[in-house]
Amino acid sequence: PETAVLLIDCPDRKGLVARVSGLLYGQGANILHADQHQDHELGLFFMRVEWSPDSSANAVSSTANNDVIFAFKQSFQSLASELQMRWQLHRFSHKPRVAIFCSQYLHCLADLLHRHSSGELPCEIAIIVSNHREAELLAAFYGIRFEHIPVTPTTRVDAEQQQRDLLASLQIELVILARYMQILTEDFVARYPAAIINVHHSFLPAFIGARPYHAAHTRGVKLIGATSHYVTTALDDGPIIEQDVARISHRDQVPDLIARGRDLERIVLSRAVRWHLEHRILCYGNKTVVFD
Amino acid sequence: PETAVLLIDCPDRKGLVARVSGLLYGQGANILHADQHQDHELGLFFMRVEWSPDSSANAVSSTANNDVIFAFKQSFQSLASELQMRWQLHRFSHKPRVAIFCSQYLHCLADLLHRHSSGELPCEIAIIVSNHREAELLAAFYGIRFEHIPVTPTTRVDAEQQQRDLLASLQIELVILARYMQILTEDFVARYPAAIINVHHSFLPAFIGARPYHAAHTRGVKLIGATSHYVTTALDDGPIIEQDVARISHRDQVPDLIARGRDLERIVLSRAVRWHLEHRILCYGNKTVVFD
Amino acid sequence: PETAVLLIDCPDRKGLVARVSGLLYGQGANILHADQHQDHELGLFFMRVEWSPDSSANAVSSTANNDVIFAFKQSFQSLASELQMRWQLHRFSHKPRVAIFCSQYLHCLADLLHRHSSGELPCEIAIIVSNHREAELLAAFYGIRFEHIPVTPTTRVDAEQQQRDLLASLQIELVILARYMQILTEDFVARYPAAIINVHHSFLPAFIGARPYHAAHTRGVKLIGATSHYVTTALDDGPIIEQDVARISHRDQVPDLIARGRDLERIVLSRAVRWHLEHRILCYGNKTVVFD
Amino acid sequence: PETAVLLIDCPDRKGLVARVSGLLYGQGANILHADQHQDHELGLFFMRVEWSPDSSANAVSSTANNDVIFAFKQSFQSLASELQMRWQLHRFSHKPRVAIFCSQYLHCLADLLHRHSSGELPCEIAIIVSNHREAELLAAFYGIRFEHIPVTPTTRVDAEQQQRDLLASLQIELVILARYMQILTEDFVARYPAAIINVHHSFLPAFIGARPYHAAHTRGVKLIGATSHYVTTALDDGPIIEQDVARISHRDQVPDLIARGRDLERIVLSRAVRWHLEHRILCYGNKTVVFD
Repeated sequence: PETAVLLIDCPDRKGLVARVSGLLYGQGANILHADQHQDHELGLFFMRVEWSPDSSANAVSSTANNDVIFAFKQSFQSLASELQMRWQLHRFSHKPRVAIFCSQYLHCLADLLHRHSSGELPCEIAIIVSNHREAELLAAFYGIRFEHIPVTPTTRVDAEQQQRDLLASLQIELVILARYMQILTEDFVARYPAAIINVHHSFLPAFIGARPYHAAHTRGVKLIGATSHYVTTALDDGPIIEQDVARISHRDQVPDLIARGRDLERIVLSRAVRWHLEHRILCYGNKTVVFD
Repeated sequence: PETAVLLIDCPDRKGLVARVSGLLYGQGANILHADQHQDHELGLFFMRVEWSPDSSANAVSSTANNDVIFAFKQSFQSLASELQMRWQLHRFSHKPRVAIFCSQYLHCLADLLHRHSSGELPCEIAIIVSNHREAELLAAFYGIRFEHIPVTPTTRVDAEQQQRDLLASLQIELVILARYMQILTEDFVARYPAAIINVHHSFLPAFIGARPYHAAHTRGVKLIGATSHYVTTALDDGPIIEQDVARISHRDQVPDLIARGRDLERIVLSRAVRWHLEHRILCYGNKTVVFD
Repeated sequence: PETAVLLIDCPDRKGLVARVSGLLYGQGANILHADQHQDHELGLFFMRVEWSPDSSANAVSSTANNDVIFAFKQSFQSLASELQMRWQLHRFSHKPRVAIFCSQYLHCLADLLHRHSSGELPCEIAIIVSNHREAELLAAFYGIRFEHIPVTPTTRVDAEQQQRDLLASLQIELVILARYMQILTEDFVARYPAAIINVHHSFLPAFIGARPYHAAHTRGVKLIGATSHYVTTALDDGPIIEQDVARISHRDQVPDLIARGRDLERIVLSRAVRWHLEHRILCYGNKTVVFD
Repeated sequence: PETAVLLIDCPDRKGLVARVSGLLYGQGANILHADQHQDHELGLFFMRVEWSPDSSANAVSSTANNDVIFAFKQSFQSLASELQMRWQLHRFSHKPRVAIFCSQYLHCLADLLHRHSSGELPCEIAIIVSNHREAELLAAFYGIRFEHIPVTPTTRVDAEQQQRDLLASLQIELVILARYMQILTEDFVARYPAAIINVHHSFLPAFIGARPYHAAHTRGVKLIGATSHYVTTALDDGPIIEQDVARISHRDQVPDLIARGRDLERIVLSRAVRWHLEHRILCYGNKTVVFD
């Protein structure tokens, strides 16, 4: 049966769980998984509910599902405005349309494409965009459209216009920067709030900016890390989604850090993408709530 | 204000979250933290709710709190029996009474006592029981009663009778086996269901039984582990609460494994104890749900 | 310049480091990296030396390199027999010839092929063998020969004969079982001592045999693992090369364990393969020394 | 038998391993464990050799040991100056004299004292110095001298003079800052090069300075860390010895981070101290080589 996810955030107050779950129950919804979080410091409430229109709905037509979900939306609207809720309702039957940006390093791209092809990532990869040509064959192998948009100091403005038009025409809902080594303009970023995921090859906030593995080597750290985060206009400073680290030693030179880091980058980026696609992430301030 | 924890498990059905949270809301309770889990395979529902009688209750007398909690219990009773719930209601103002058993190795005991003294473990340590004398000074330092009950093949029966009487007279609610190297009888274990926590020095189910670090060394594993679990009558086979591992190499001999393992044992045992005391754990079958 | 690796194991005695390094020094070798290990319990000595014929050899012809290495071999021979050494001398310019076996699950295969294509694995992948057809396109994409050899109860003997002939004709030096779900015969295994690497999807020795993720779920463990090891005739009992684990919770069902486990399997298998290809592993008894 | 550790660092050149091991062999030394490291970038060579004067020396008098070690020193001197080596020779029979500084948080102190009492840390803890009184009872329990030296803005200079005199009079060789919340003067630090170990409660270089757990919470990181390092005159910028991290989630507030961080701090500080006492660490530039 159809499954939907309701994501809520609002000022905390008494009875929120009771009222939301009561409304769902009243509509005949079956809660498959519910999770809440309260930030007592800021007085905020967050909730994620995975539910299906009806538990005995295996035989029910998708039209009936549509009706139940539509009815729920109608009745939820007034509750939401009364309680000052920001909310999203997603249906798992809808696969978000995704664009992947990359440069010449293909390890994150290859990993995402393999995971997608084996069913781990519930989305439709509509396009791969790159300022290099290395990804072209891989895109072809997985049957995904590839667009080569070179970026040079002189073509930068045009290139971004071209990218934007492309994303708009393809109705892209999520942009993944899979080691895309170009900085996007504020304007571009503003069009996709909490909808551009980047992987940075350090344990942020350590080693912001370029060449973090070199910086890590110079500082003599004993662990290296990688971070996936939503892109905001501040460089490497958006809400962190996931981080992981690996142990290194004095024996490891910069190329070793780069090689070990590739495994971390793949892991933290693919987790972030999956959680986003499963509607597990809520941003607030410069942080994320990641419901498990 | 007083905080209470409600722990529920019951057959899964529609509307459980709505009805429990609705009841709490109706009683004027303030939900501080709620978490649910559904085992779709077995059709089971688990819930943990941390709540306070009233959110504006800073000024409210503990008598008033008592009334609210009593009233909640009354009204919850009928809901619970209708929905076939097993449930527990704990108040954080009640500190469970704990007995720690140990042998001659003191690292877990010393760790627990230090954590307790710095406020990490919300309980009252009523007694330390040991078949050796090594723990005596440490117990004295922390002002905790120490009882030396030697265990030999011939005194085993008497010794356990003595332990049981002691625990009964002290109204012990939780027994912690902090590297206590004796096996308890089925009869003893049956008196404390899901209330005896042991630490086993391996990553269970690998290396069940005696000398697990020796067995790990012989097998040539690359990680060693430790496991905390509730004690049941099957040796090293009770519901697992927590596990952790550490990397080793060919350089590490058995004494190195033992030394590194001590850190793991401390961590997994103290986490299990804390989670138990915070009423985060529900057992079902031979497993645990650990609410975070 | 050419780099060579000398791997030694022998009964421990005084002066071994001095005599081996003295011999290399006398031959004009430049030690790039040396590591030793002594098992004091068993009285064994292990050594790995990475060296180049001459440090100023950038301009030196490969013929000259050959001469130095040949001369070293000659003089080392007598030392080795005097000291009862088992030894191997590998040149990095020689890329071992590898066969990868897989079934219908492609995540380990795809990972190895991507790593190989990006230069992480110094070998020549001569063939991919499978009892299924799923890997065929992937093999074609990377330009690697694919051989489909179905295995059924009735064709088992013939199939293995076919595999053996193939490996022999291709002069295969290392066989990687990348989630190959068939059991090889003792006879097959005996032909490739310490030269067949398997990945088992559990933290060995826990959950030996089939369906380890199901067993882990049933037991209620809090961490799952994966293990790469050399294949011996005892099922899942060969010398362990690498292990890793990931944290799970009560929320994770068997499909979640399988998905998370795929990441572990990729990591531990690819590390084992890389270390083998870099001649970092020595087997003794049922264990490995892995030089870092 | 007596065991000694030789630590060397010098410009890299051919034959170093051969000449050092040859010299030891010539003196009848038995190498128990040897490890080298070459920094090819900087052209530096590092070596650690654990050796005993004679392998059959169980019966040998300590006078004989002294003679062998003295003879070795004599002959090594000339080799060392020829090859521009900086070197140290330590005997395990000598237990370094240690001072521990702490403030009011006792978790690291309690951990170090317990480890010391169970034989994990080969040193003599000569004194515990604190600007608070909380540690006094713990020091008494372990029978270690405690000195309360208050530090206020006006007494700072006197207090440090008092500390220095104390350390000098006790011939302290290693100072451990076990969450000592005062900053030492450059002059103090200069007296103990690579001999003051601090633990910082963050994954350096992230969150340098005060209140790192608060900063981590504000930034919304998904892992917290701790770092042990040698103290230099640059705040939190000395050579890193060890780091570790723990996973956190949006549920964890600052007090949770502090509690979880305590476990990390204990681990990274105690490892650093043990490695230092086992003469496993060499500093160069702002980094460490940690021989395992």
